[in-house]
Formats: sequence, C-alpha cells, structure tokens
Amino acid sequence: MTYRAPVNEIMLSMVHNGGFDQALKSGLYPDMDLDQLRAILEEAGKFATDVLAPLNQIGDTNPVKLGAAGVETAPGWSDAYSKFVEGGWSTVSGSPNHGGMGLPEIVASAISEMWNAANLAFGLCPLLSIGAIHALEAHGSQALQGQYLEKLISGRWTGTMNLTEPNAGSDLSPMRTRAEPVGDGTYKITGQKIYITYGDHDMAENIVHLVLARLPDAPAGTRGISLFLVPKFLVNADGSLGARNDVFCAALEHKLGIHASPTCTMVFGDKGGAIGYLIGEENKGLACMFTMMNSARLGVGIQGVGLAERATQQALAYAADRRQGKAAGDTAPLSAIIHHPDVQRMLLTMQSQTRVARALCLMTAASIDIANLSPDAAARKLASDRAGLLTPIAKAYSTDIANEVSSLNVQVHGGMGFIEGTGAAQHMRDARILAIYEGTNGIQAIDLVQRKLPMNGGQPVKHEIALARAMLATLPANSAYGQTAVRLSAALDAMEQATHYLLSAPTQAALAGASDYLRLCGLALGGAALAAQAVGDNSAQSIGLCRFFAERLATAAPGLALSVISGAEAVREVA
Amino acid sequence: MTYRAPVNEIMLSMVHNGGFDQALKSGLYPDMDLDQLRAILEEAGKFATDVLAPLNQIGDTNPVKLGAAGVETAPGWSDAYSKFVEGGWSTVSGSPNHGGMGLPEIVASAISEMWNAANLAFGLCPLLSIGAIHALEAHGSQALQGQYLEKLISGRWTGTMNLTEPNAGSDLSPMRTRAEPVGDGTYKITGQKIYITYGDHDMAENIVHLVLARLPDAPAGTRGISLFLVPKFLVNADGSLGARNDVFCAALEHKLGIHASPTCTMVFGDKGGAIGYLIGEENKGLACMFTMMNSARLGVGIQGVGLAERATQQALAYAADRRQGKAAGDTAPLSAIIHHPDVQRMLLTMQSQTRVARALCLMTAASIDIANLSPDAAARKLASDRAGLLTPIAKAYSTDIANEVSSLNVQVHGGMGFIEGTGAAQHMRDARILAIYEGTNGIQAIDLVQRKLPMNGGQPVKHEIALARAMLATLPANSAYGQTAVRLSAALDAMEQATHYLLSAPTQAALAGASDYLRLCGLALGGAALAAQAVGDNSAQSIGLCRFFAERLATAAPGLALSVISGAEAVREVA
Repeated sequence: MTYRAPVNEIMLSMVHNGGFDQALKSGLYPDMDLDQLRAILEEAGKFATDVLAPLNQIGDTNPVKLGAAGVETAPGWSDAYSKFVEGGWSTVSGSPNHGGMGLPEIVASAISEMWNAANLAFGLCPLLSIGAIHALEAHGSQALQGQYLEKLISGRWTGTMNLTEPNAGSDLSPMRTRAEPVGDGTYKITGQKIYITYGDHDMAENIVHLVLARLPDAPAGTRGISLFLVPKFLVNADGSLGARNDVFCAALEHKLGIHASPTCTMVFGDKGGAIGYLIGEENKGLACMFTMMNSARLGVGIQGVGLAERATQQALAYAADRRQGKAAGDTAPLSAIIHHPDVQRMLLTMQSQTRVARALCLMTAASIDIANLSPDAAARKLASDRAGLLTPIAKAYSTDIANEVSSLNVQVHGGMGFIEGTGAAQHMRDARILAIYEGTNGIQAIDLVQRKLPMNGGQPVKHEIALARAMLATLPANSAYGQTAVRLSAALDAMEQATHYLLSAPTQAALAGASDYLRLCGLALGGAALAAQAVGDNSAQSIGLCRFFAERLATAAPGLALSVISGAEAVREVA
Repeated sequence: MTYRAPVNEIMLSMVHNGGFDQALKSGLYPDMDLDQLRAILEEAGKFATDVLAPLNQIGDTNPVKLGAAGVETAPGWSDAYSKFVEGGWSTVSGSPNHGGMGLPEIVASAISEMWNAANLAFGLCPLLSIGAIHALEAHGSQALQGQYLEKLISGRWTGTMNLTEPNAGSDLSPMRTRAEPVGDGTYKITGQKIYITYGDHDMAENIVHLVLARLPDAPAGTRGISLFLVPKFLVNADGSLGARNDVFCAALEHKLGIHASPTCTMVFGDKGGAIGYLIGEENKGLACMFTMMNSARLGVGIQGVGLAERATQQALAYAADRRQGKAAGDTAPLSAIIHHPDVQRMLLTMQSQTRVARALCLMTAASIDIANLSPDAAARKLASDRAGLLTPIAKAYSTDIANEVSSLNVQVHGGMGFIEGTGAAQHMRDARILAIYEGTNGIQAIDLVQRKLPMNGGQPVKHEIALARAMLATLPANSAYGQTAVRLSAALDAMEQATHYLLSAPTQAALAGASDYLRLCGLALGGAALAAQAVGDNSAQSIGLCRFFAERLATAAPGLALSVISGAEAVREVA
C-alpha cells in the first residue's frame, strides 16, 4: 500500500481553514494563484509517492549504522536525497535572497505534509534544515549568512539543532557544553549532546550544527546560554570545504521508530575543540533557538498530519479489501469489513481527526504568513499572536492524533496489524516520537496556558473563539448535518468556560488542567474548522466527516471543561 | 527497574470489588482464608520478581527462532518454565481430581496478573494451557481427560488454541481445515492455522493442540465446525510419549511485540494426516471453543492489568528519579518531575486506570466463582449472567487501558521512552496485541450490546447499575472526596441512559455505539469500584485515586452517552 497525496483535501483546508483564497485576493501572495498551487502540490505529491514512499519500509528494516567514516543511511536514501535537492524541493521556504523559492509558509507546510506522510524518517532531515535556516536568517551575521545560507537552502548542506544533554532536556538550564573565545572571533566548543537528529549522515556534503553552549563567564541557568554555528567541515573563504571540524557522532540510539533517521550522541572538542561561530548575541542563545523551535513545532505538527493521513489511507485500503462477517444489507457471502459499523467508526475517526489536525496546522501556517507578509502592522501583530496561540495546539493535538490514528490503523488490521511486514506497526512506532520531541506535548500545554493564553489579557484566544463561532453561524439548516451545530456550539461553550476559568486560575490549577484544556481547544476549534470545510465545498464527504466529528468526538468537550474547571485539586503529589 | 507485586492493592480489590471477604464468610471458598491468600500472593510475587521479570527484556531482544527441531525460545526461558512447573504454579486453577490446586478463579486471576506484569510473553503460555484445560474439563471424554488433564495441569505439557486461518479470523465461518474419520474413532486432520501462540516451543515435553476443523459432511458456516485434540507427540496407553504427530510449525511471525512468544503458522497433515481426537459432539466445536475463549478473554483482560501495573511502576520510579525544571514550593535547584502537575496527571491516570482495570477483571472472576461454586442455583444463574456481562468489558476496557497506560509511560520518560533499552517502549509494543487477540475489542463491544445486554430483558446490566449505585451511596460527606459523588453519579446516569437507549435501539444503531458504550460502562462501573476501595480502606491513596478518576476521567461519561444515543446516524458508509 503506497501513499497518494490528498491534493484536493489539502487545498480544501488551505482555502477554507487557511484563508488561502482571501490571501490571494488581498495580494498577500503576489506570485501565487490556485492553478500554480495545484501544480506544485501535484508535483510534490508525485515525488513523495514515487521516490520517498518506497524507501519508508526499507529505512525501517535497515536502521542507520555508525561506520568508520560516520553514519551510513539505508540503501537508496542518499540517492533519494540527491533527487530531492536536484528537484529543488529543499528551496521551498528559504529566502529568494539566498536561492530559495520563498513560498508562503502554508504552501511549505502542505508540501511538508507529503514528505512526512511518504516517509517520516526522511522528512525529518529537511525539517531540521529549515529550522537552522530560519535561525540563521533571523539572527546570523551577514558573513555567516553569506557563507552558509545558500548551501543550506539548496539542500547541499543540512542543518541540525543541538540542544539536549543527558541532564538537560525539557529544562535546558543545567546545560554544560562550553564555548571558549579563541580571540579571533571564533570559539572552541567542548561537550556532549544527545538525541541529535541527523547529527551525522552520508546524504549531504556538509552538516551545519546549531549548538547551544555556555561562555566561561556566563550566568547560570538559561540566561547564560549562547548559540553557535559549528560546521562538520570548516568552510574556506571561497566557499569550498576545508578541514574536518572536531565534532563527531559517538553513538547512535536504538529507537522504537524512525529507524532510518540517525539519532546521534555528538561529541564536540574531543580532539582539541570544535570551531564555532556565535549566532546573535552572547547569552541570548535561547531566544535564537526559539526561532528554530517555533518553526520546528509547527513542522512536527505537520509530521503528525502526514503520519495520520498515511495510516488512514492504509486502513481504508485494507478495510475495503479484507472480508470477514456479514454486514447488514450486504448480498455478498462475506462482507468487506469497511461495511461493519464499528470499523466505520474507526475509519471516520481517523479521517475526521486527520482533517482537524491538518486544519489546525494550516491555520497556524496562514497566521505566520500574515505575520511575515502583511503590509498592515496591526494585522501582523494580530496574526503573530494568533500563530503563537495556535502553535502549541497544532503541535500537540496533531501529534496526539497521529498516535491515536496510527494505533487505530493497527486495530483495523486486526492480527495482521501486529505483524511487522504489514507496515501498520511501523507507522505506530514512528508516530510515537512526535508527542515527545520539540517540546513534549505536556510542555506545549504549559506553553499554551502559561504564556499564550494570558497574552494581551486573553485577546487572542477570545478572538479565536469568535472566529469559530462565526464559522458555525454559517452552517445551513440541513438535516444532513444532524446535531452538528448543537454539538459544536457546546464544544465552543466548553472552551470558552474553561478559558475564562484559566485566565484567572492560580498557576498550579492552570498547570493541572493544561493538557485537558489543549485537547478541548483542538476539539472546539477543529470542529469549527470542519464546519468551514463542509460549508465550503458542500460535499457529502465533508458534511459527513464534520457531522461525525461533531456528534461522536466533539461530545467529549464539555467533560474536558469540567475536568479543567473543577478537577485541579484532584492533581496532587503522587505516592 | 524491576517489578514488585502489588499484593496489598490486589487484596484491596479482591476484598472490596471481588467480595472475597464475604465469599469467605459465606463458605464459598472453604479451603481459604486471608492469611493464606496473602502468603500465596507473596510467594507468587516473589517468583514473578525473581524468575520471570529478569527474562522480560531478554525475551524481547532474543526473539524465538525456528530451528531444525522446532521453535527455540530465548536464553533462560526453558529453565524458567521448568521452575514454574516445579513450583507448582501451573496447577493453580486446575481441578484437584487431576492434580490441580483448584484455587478460586479470583485467586488464579490475581496470580496471573503477576506473571503477566513480570513477563507478558511468558504469561501467555500458561494462559493458553488454562484455556485448553477448561475446554477438556468441560467437554472432553473421560478417556481424553484421563490421558491429558493431569499432564496439562502439572504444566509438563502445554496447550494451544488453533482457530484462525488466513481467511477466518474474527469470523470463523470460512474455515477450511478438514477432519476425516479414520474409522477407529480417531480423525486425520489436514490444513493450516495461523497466529498460533506457543504453537511450538522447547519448554515442555508435549504440546496439546485444540483445533477447530470441519468434518467431510459438515454444514457450511460455524455450525459445521468441530473441536479436536491434536497432540504434538501421540500418547501411549501407559501415558508415555509415542510417535511424533504430523503437526509442525512452518513459520514464525515477526511481530511488533511479545517477541519471546512464538506466533506460529501450524501445518497439520502435510505428511499424511495429523491424528486428532474429537472433543464434545460433532459440529458443536464452536460452543466448546467458547469455553476456552471466555476463560481466555478474562485472562487477556488480566494481562492488560499486569502490563498496566508494570508500566505504572516504571513511570513512578523514573518520575521520582528524573530531575528537570522547578516545581512550585520545591527547594531543590532541580525538581524530580514527579512534582510537576502535568506529570502527576499522567501518573494518577495510570494508577487509577490500572486499579479500575483490575477491579473490572476481579469482579468478573468473582462472578465466575459464584457461578461455579455456589450451592444456590439462582445465585449461580445470576452470577453466570453477571460474568457474561462483565467479561467483554473486563477484556476490552482493561486492554485499552494497557495501551493507554503503557503509552503514558513512554511519555513520562520523554526522549528516553523512545529509546529501546529503557524498556518503556517494549511494554507499549507488547501491550498492542491485547486489544486484538481473543476477539478484538470491537468484537467485545458487539458481544456486549448484541448478546450480553439483552439477556433477560436487560436484568444483568440493570442489576450491575444498581450495585454500583449502592456503592456510591456509601461515600461519606468528606471534603477529601471533592466532587467524587457528583461525578460518579453522573457517570452512572449516563450509563443508565445509554443502556435504556440500546435495549430498544435498531441493530445498526446499537453496533454504531457499541465501542463508546463499552468505554462508558468501564468508566461508570470502574468509578464505583474505586469508590468501594476508598470507602473500604479509607486511605489517602485510595481516596485520592478515586477522586482523581471521578473528577478527571469519569467526566468523559456523559459525552460518551451522547455519542451513543444521538450519534448512530453519523456512522455511515466510508468513502
């Protein structure tokens, strides 16, 4: 079972959730139109299907290896990456000043969904590069930008994020990696980082590590962390590659999933010191890193969408093929299991939740575009706040859904789902990292209730609820929708009540309800997003999925609000 | 991190959910008392910790192999099984007429939880034997019982269930394996079975396969299926082993989890025919097999409890050790993550759901004991109906919980959880089969709404709701309980409303709501069970877990009722 890019579904969500149409009309994307968008998406989908998808299982069964010359990727991976670069796919979101296409974030997100649906372990590599590109574009000196950006954007070099150490994960304050000024403007970096994705590999000529480290006189905690660029190979003034830098992969993790993506222990300076270059100001590294993190958080949400889409496609194909039992009204001696109500429940859950996850991510991406591109400063500020609010929801909700949907795919397959060759198990294993990396989903929930909710006295979240209510107001009085309007209104009421409570709740109470609140936001805003799709294309499919989501899944919203509002005291010290 | 048997928690549930105390007083278990129970549980716990738990990861990293002489288990497994047999642990639930201890089902269940917590892949082997023993005890001829029961109960021989074929899984009607009468009372069995757990291995002297097959003149469908006993080695009149029978493992599945448990493709009669012996009547095999299946369904629910308990213990230990961030009121520079509210939410979810799963299983086991042992025919009938009602809930709810809790364990571990060596990932992989085998959880839900709910016009379910209400009536007016009584009453109201609806709903509507209804039953009955524990021991721990479950998890119940009652039409043909 291969992957087919759902171009129509993606465009539906871009237009009716991401406001793509309106943005075109307003001139936000001057170089785009819908025909061109479709052409790009179809071309990307073809590459995903033809080149990346066939390598997904090969990567799973041929984990990366650490050889004498460094990390070796699975058969065919280096070739595929070369094709990726030759096809120009690495340049999608980079600045045109350095050879990028500079496509809108929403388009880049739509394309990224396809890479990750086809091959999650592969999709991680460009995802990390994009984070490094964003950080360099925002904080790098002219000299560093000149030397590194074009190669990174072209994809000939790849990027990494070096944050985690054994004692510094969700909390970076105990970080110990050190940077000593050499005197010539460069620094010697020494220390060890763990869980470094694509920290080493054989697919690109050079690897550009963005590394958090402490200067000798740095204050303790997170205010004493600086960001450095540490290339695998030093770069000569003419842009050619120089000496091997003192940064090496010392070990690879043996992981539950994404076996083809190297997760490296990186050792800096074991042979005298790795040469690094400061990015941004001293001791302001965390702020620079957050530029990467925010971009990467949406990127991981998109990975969740891709994985969920892939698992849903596999489940649908299997359920249409596998025959067991006899469904009501079926004349065949054995019915395809797609006709059994409980299997339909699973498939509709997968389809509707995947749509919701996609909508949340594309809404976030669209806000980033307005924040970046609008000529109106007030609109930019509004959109920037909106992106801030939606990012943790997009990341956490979408990756929770990826886990749930990939597990449902296993369940639809029955015993076959537990057999590795089927591929369903791989999707489930691969998905499991998504709720953990780039800030665990618990961290996202804390970010939501502690930093994003209180922005401007809660204006962004109130505005989001108002937008969602406006969408529901457009639902027609049509019996095909059943109780959709009632259920989705109840979900928004629940979100509004929980929001009201959290905006003045004590910190501990807010933290106790954070994860349930994030889920509630996903259900309430996601339901409205599916209503917008249904009203938008008025198809039986969109109406049916919106109705299923409203009547069967959004029904959980009032209970979640109750948990948030009156369940804080139940969270206590654990014995 | 090893496993410690939670003897106190298990006894708490046996007494306050399983009515063990009362059963003792009423004379149902004439040969037991509480001291003796504790001694048995502690001894079993010691065996689980010392012998089985250390082999769990070894089994995962040394999957079973198919050698020239058959299936080879992981290093140390055969030894451990010998110790298991020598210790008499195999005899726990067998009839004393054939060397069994004949312990009550509730005690056997409590012990089984420990085997499966320590080592799920190992625990499957005795679980399958018990199913075979039950079927033989209930349906085997005197001659077959005499020849096989003592060896099976002693554990020197093990048992299997041979049901599934490539085209016959959840639906057995297309089954094709054939049985030809030889004329001497035996049959020649030919055909292929798949997914046969412990179908071959090197831990016991002989393997006793219970095999479903069709006689030449059998009616089509499930009314033409008979049950046969097919030994790996034929048994001589004096009980010694004779010739190798024509049944072989042809292949092993490469699975997501339980790598140490062989999942075999079994070929019968490739060399002329495997000799088999009819169990029960011709064409009545499915009824005989249901004796095994029902026992095995509760057994799998118990596996879920064990796995959830193990994952919870690991998460607690890690959270108490791992330091990140600073919790409110903590004076340490870095807090153990067990003090962070969102981690507490996860841990309390794990603890309370594990207790609920255990309670549901032990309530089922207690009902089976009354159905088997009560001198009062009316009580036996009532208890038998109750066991019938609770079995699908115990199986499906507990195994869903095993999946959720083992995934939360990974989440509590953060990045470490995704690394295979940590062990958290193994628990999650192992758990995934539990919602699939012995009837998928969807099949359990269908069994619940289509067969169990309508029994006696719904009397058993109404009786169960009344029992739960009576438990809630004993909750004291104590502020430590917060909103517990309100939330748990609401959950029972929701279950009652959904029950009322389903008892007269059209078939398709009932099927559409089956899985949500089963979940709802687990929440409502489970909440009452935790209330009984809290009132029972009045400890801060029991009260706290009951309150957390009521205020944070049982809040989902009204939404589920809404989905069941008004969401049937949302389930439709999938495009």
